[in-house]
Amino acid sequence: MQRTNSSIELIALDGIPLVHARDDLAGIILDALARANLTFAARDILVVAQKIVSKSEGRLVRLDTIEPSQRAMDIARAGIIIVEDVRGLVLANAGVDASNVNADGGDGSVLLLPADPDASAANLRAALEARTGVNVGIIINDSVGRAWRNGTVGTAIGLSGLPGLLDLRGTPDLFGRELRTTDLGLADEIAAAASLLMGQAGEGRPVVLVRGVSYERREGNVRELLRPKSLDFFR
Amino acid sequence: MQRTNSSIELIALDGIPLVHARDDLAGIILDALARANLTFAARDILVVAQKIVSKSEGRLVRLDTIEPSQRAMDIARAGIIIVEDVRGLVLANAGVDASNVNADGGDGSVLLLPADPDASAANLRAALEARTGVNVGIIINDSVGRAWRNGTVGTAIGLSGLPGLLDLRGTPDLFGRELRTTDLGLADEIAAAASLLMGQAGEGRPVVLVRGVSYERREGNVRELLRPKSLDFFR
Repeated sequence: MQRTNSSIELIALDGIPLVHARDDLAGIILDALARANLTFAARDILVVAQKIVSKSEGRLVRLDTIEPSQRAMDIARAGIIIVEDVRGLVLANAGVDASNVNADGGDGSVLLLPADPDASAANLRAALEARTGVNVGIIINDSVGRAWRNGTVGTAIGLSGLPGLLDLRGTPDLFGRELRTTDLGLADEIAAAASLLMGQAGEGRPVVLVRGVSYERREGNVRELLRPKSLDFFR
Repeated sequence: MQRTNSSIELIALDGIPLVHARDDLAGIILDALARANLTFAARDILVVAQKIVSKSEGRLVRLDTIEPSQRAMDIARAGIIIVEDVRGLVLANAGVDASNVNADGGDGSVLLLPADPDASAANLRAALEARTGVNVGIIINDSVGRAWRNGTVGTAIGLSGLPGLLDLRGTPDLFGRELRTTDLGLADEIAAAASLLMGQAGEGRPVVLVRGVSYERREGNVRELLRPKSLDFFR
C-alpha cells in the first residue's frame, strides 16, 4: 500500500512478557522493539497499558490487607461504582483492576493505578530517550467507561512529551471563520486508537507504537484533559 | 518499517472536494481512492466525517427560516448546551455545526446531523460495495464533547457493516478468569483514531481509510453504543 504524508501507523509490539514489580519497563520495551526490527523515529508515541506500568511499580495489593469502610461496602453493593480518585480521574470502574493480575498476587489481589501516572510516563520517557537518543511521547492508557454511551474506550491516564489537549482556538476553518470548538482531546484519541490493538481480552499486547501523529513537542500532562469541577456540568 | 499481523494503518484520502447537496458521496470517495492508488481490501473501514454526509444530504438550514422557542433561546443564552437529540445521541454541542459550512449557505446557515446516520452509513456502504464488490465497514464520526474531560474526541454517530460494541463477556483473561468489563466501544475507538487525521481545523480530510482492525462482519448500529436511560447513572 502506498504511504502518503497523511497516514498513521499503529504497531503492537509482540512478545512483551508478564511484568513484575521492579521490572525494567524501558528495557522490556526496547527488547520488543528490537525483536520487531524497529527503531524509534522522532515523534513516535508509545502507548503503554496501565496494567504493566502498575505492575512494574508494585501496585498489586492483597485485598485481605485492606479494611473497607462500611460506606465503601454499601457503595460496592450497588454494583456500579463511579469514582473520582485521588488523581482527579473520574472512572466508571473505580480504577481498580482484578483481571490479568493473577500471576503475582493470586486471586485475592487487585491492581491499583500508578500513584502518579504523569510521573510514570515521564520516567519511562526519560529512560527510553537516554538509551536511544530519540525524543518520543508516552501515553499510559486504560479502558474506561463513559457517561451516556455503552462500552469502554481507551483513555489517557498519564502522559509525557506531547500535549494532552490540542488548542485549536483561532485556527480558521475552511472559510476563514474562527472555530467554535476549541480543544481536541489529542492524547485521548491516541489512547483510544492504540486500544484497538490491545483489546481487553488479555492478548498480552500492552505496548503499541504510534507513528505519524503530528504534534508539537512539549511536556504535557493528563490534568489538561481533566475538566475542573467548577466547569463540570455533569455532576 | 516491517509490517506485522498486529498493526493498523490509517490513511486520510487527499483531495476530497467540497461536498454539496445531492453529490454522489460514494463516487467522490472512489475517485479519491483511485487517485491514492488504493483499492479496498476486505474488512477495510471507512470513517467519514458527519459534515460531508450532512452536506450531501442537504441538511444545511438557513437560521432565518427557523423560529426558536423562548425556552431554546433561554438555554442557548446559558452558553453551553447539552442535548439528547431525536436520535438518542447525547451531545455537548447540540449536534448543530456552524464551521466549514459557509460555501453553500452563507453565514446565516447551520448544518444539522443526518436524519438517520445509521441509514446514511448503510446507504453509503451499499453504494460502495455495489461498485467495488468488496465488503467494507462504514462509520460516520463527529467531534463530541464529554463529561468530566476537556477536549472533543471523534465519536461514532452512525455505522454499518461492523459491530458498534464488541462483547467480551466470557472471554477469559490471561489467567483464565472471566473478564469483569464486558463491552468494548469498538466503533468509537475507530472513530477517535480516524479523527487524529481529520483534525477540526478544516484541513479538508473528511475521509479516512482504516485497515487492519479485526472484527466480525455484521450489520451493527449506533444504538448499541447509546446507554438506555434506565441504566444511565449520569442523568
